[in-house]
Amino acid sequence: MGAAAPLERPGRPQPVTLRQVAEAAGVSTATVSLVVNKKKTARISDETRQRVRDAIRDLGYRPNAMAQTLVSGSSRFIGLVADAIATTPFAGQIIHGAQDEAWKHGYALLIANTEGNRELETDAIAMMLEYKVRGILYSTWFHRPTDIPASLKESDFVLVNCFSTEPGSRAVVPDEIQGGRSATEILLKHGHRRIAFINATIPAPAKDGRLQGYREALEAEGIPFDAGLVLEAYPDQEGGYGATEELLKREATAVYCYNDRMAMGLYDGLREHGLSIPEDIAVVGFDNQEVIAAHVRPPLSTVALPHYELGAAGVRMLLGLEEAPAADPTKIHCPTVERNSVRALAPA
Amino acid sequence: MGAAAPLERPGRPQPVTLRQVAEAAGVSTATVSLVVNKKKTARISDETRQRVRDAIRDLGYRPNAMAQTLVSGSSRFIGLVADAIATTPFAGQIIHGAQDEAWKHGYALLIANTEGNRELETDAIAMMLEYKVRGILYSTWFHRPTDIPASLKESDFVLVNCFSTEPGSRAVVPDEIQGGRSATEILLKHGHRRIAFINATIPAPAKDGRLQGYREALEAEGIPFDAGLVLEAYPDQEGGYGATEELLKREATAVYCYNDRMAMGLYDGLREHGLSIPEDIAVVGFDNQEVIAAHVRPPLSTVALPHYELGAAGVRMLLGLEEAPAADPTKIHCPTVERNSVRALAPA
Repeated sequence: MGAAAPLERPGRPQPVTLRQVAEAAGVSTATVSLVVNKKKTARISDETRQRVRDAIRDLGYRPNAMAQTLVSGSSRFIGLVADAIATTPFAGQIIHGAQDEAWKHGYALLIANTEGNRELETDAIAMMLEYKVRGILYSTWFHRPTDIPASLKESDFVLVNCFSTEPGSRAVVPDEIQGGRSATEILLKHGHRRIAFINATIPAPAKDGRLQGYREALEAEGIPFDAGLVLEAYPDQEGGYGATEELLKREATAVYCYNDRMAMGLYDGLREHGLSIPEDIAVVGFDNQEVIAAHVRPPLSTVALPHYELGAAGVRMLLGLEEAPAADPTKIHCPTVERNSVRALAPA
Repeated sequence: MGAAAPLERPGRPQPVTLRQVAEAAGVSTATVSLVVNKKKTARISDETRQRVRDAIRDLGYRPNAMAQTLVSGSSRFIGLVADAIATTPFAGQIIHGAQDEAWKHGYALLIANTEGNRELETDAIAMMLEYKVRGILYSTWFHRPTDIPASLKESDFVLVNCFSTEPGSRAVVPDEIQGGRSATEILLKHGHRRIAFINATIPAPAKDGRLQGYREALEAEGIPFDAGLVLEAYPDQEGGYGATEELLKREATAVYCYNDRMAMGLYDGLREHGLSIPEDIAVVGFDNQEVIAAHVRPPLSTVALPHYELGAAGVRMLLGLEEAPAADPTKIHCPTVERNSVRALAPA
C-alpha cells in the first residue's frame, strides 16, 4: 500500500491541546492526562477531576484514542470481515447488529469488505491485527461451512453465518431446521395438507435444514412425507419461474419456496397460467428479503433470516458475554412474518 | 459506553515480540523499531535492514499500528459515516468503492452505520476524531441536501451522495440530469415518441434532475414537452402499481419510471390489464437496483446509480488526488444498462 500525497487543510481550526485544557483548569498537563486516561489510583480530588472535565467539555478537547490504546494495552476495536457487503442485502443487517452490540460495550467496529477476494481478506485481517483489535467476527453472506484463515487464529474470533469443524472454533448460524418448520406451519395452520416444497439445487446447510424442517412439520401433523412433492430449482427468480410447470403437475394447494427470490419468479409463472395467489395456490418464501418480500403482489408470507441477531450474538460471544457451546454452532431463531400470500384452504 | 468483561484466551500462541525479532536478526530492539517505523534517515545498512525484514517474515511479527500512528502523528484510517447500511442496498456499493480506493492509497476504512440516528452519528464522528482519522466521508443513501454536523468540521470531510450550500464543503453526487437524459434516450433510439414519465411525489434532487433530463432528451429530438405525460407516484412498487390506470389513459407507447421499484410494481399493473412488455408498452427504470432490475420479467432496461464510483471519488477527493470544484458538487456519470423491456416501435 503506497502512501497518498499530503492534503492542504484550508482554514480548519487547530485541535485543542492537552496544555490548553491544563491552563483552563489551572492544573498540570500530567493531571489532565491522568483524568483523561481514567487512572483511578491517581490521587486527584473529585473537585479537581470535575474542573478538568468541565474544561474538556468547554474547549471541545478530544483525547487521542490511539495513545489511550497504548496506555491500556488493548484497542476498543472489534474487527468484522464480510464477504459481500456490496452485492447482497444480508451483510448490512449483520453489520447493524454487530455494531449496535459493540457500541453498547464500548467498542467500535472496524469493517472490511472482501467481496470474496482471498488476498484482500488476508490484508484485511493483517490490518486488524496490527490495530490490536479485541477480536474478529468472520462473516459470510450465506450460511455455509468455511475454512479458517490462518491469520484469523492470531486473534479471538467468532464465525458469523458460517462454521468450521475445527476444534475450538466458535460460531453462530441461523436455525434452518426451525425456520423450515415455521414456514411449513404457516401453511398447515391454514388447513393445507398437500404442500409442495421447491428446494435449491445448490448444496448448503440451508438446503438440508429447510427440508428437514418441512418433514418435521408434516410429521407433527401426521402427514406422510411424499418425496414427489419436493422439487429443486436454482435459488433465484429465474429458478422459481422455471419450476412453475413441474409444480402444477403436483396438484398441491400450497407451496413453500426455498427463498423469496424463487417465490418472486414463481409469482410470475403462476400468473402466466392464470392462477391467483392465494386463491388458487398459497405461497410461502424464506429470508424476508428487503425490497422483495413486502413488495411483491400479494405481499409474501415468509420466514426471516436473523442477520441482525447473528451480528449481535457474534459480538456477545466474542466478548465472553454469551456462552459458546463446545461443539456445535449456536443457532439463532428465524421468526415467522405473515403477509397475504396464504389464506385458509376452502373445504373440498 | 461501559467496558466489557475480560475474556479468557485459551491456548492461543503469544504474539511475537520486538525482542524476539531483534534476537533472531542479531540486532538491538532499537534497530528493529527503526526498520519497522521506516525511518529512512537512520543509519542502518541495507544488509541489516534485510536481515530484520527476514526475521519479521520468518517469525510472523506484527508491528503495532497504534504505536506507528503515534510515531508518525497521523492514522491510516479514513472514516465513513453511512445512514442506512442495513436497510438499503445502496450503501454497500459506496462502501465497496471507498474501501477499494482507500486500500490503494494505504488507508483502511473505519465504517459507522447510523441508520439515521443523530445521537449515534455524533458518537461515531467523535470516535473517528479520537482515532485521528485522515478524514471522513459523510454519506447518505439517497441523493439529498444535508446539514453538516458541527463535529464533522473538526476533520477533513467529503459529502458523498449528499451536498450542502455551506461554503468550502466538498461533495460528490450522481449526475441526475444526464441519467434522466440517458433513460429517455433508450426509448427514443427505439423509435418511441410518445413517452410518459412517472416521477416521484417526494421532493428530491433526483426528482428535479431526472425530469430535466427527460425534457432535454425530448427537446434534442424536436419533441415538444407535454406536461400531461408526466405523472407522479410514491417511489416504490406500490406507487408504480397504483399509477397503472392513469398511465394507460395517456396512450403512450413507452414509459420511463423514476426508479426500478416503481417499474416492478408497474409490471404487475400492466400484466393485470393484459398488456405485454415490451410488445404493448416499453418500460425503462432507474437505479439498476440489485435483486430487481435483472430479475423482473422481462429484465428491465435502466440507468445505474454510480454508488461504487461515488465512494471511490469521495476518497480521491478527500486525499487531494482529485480536484473538488469550488462551488458545485462533483457529478458522477450514471451509465445505461440495456436489457429486454424495450423494443423498437413498430411502424404505425
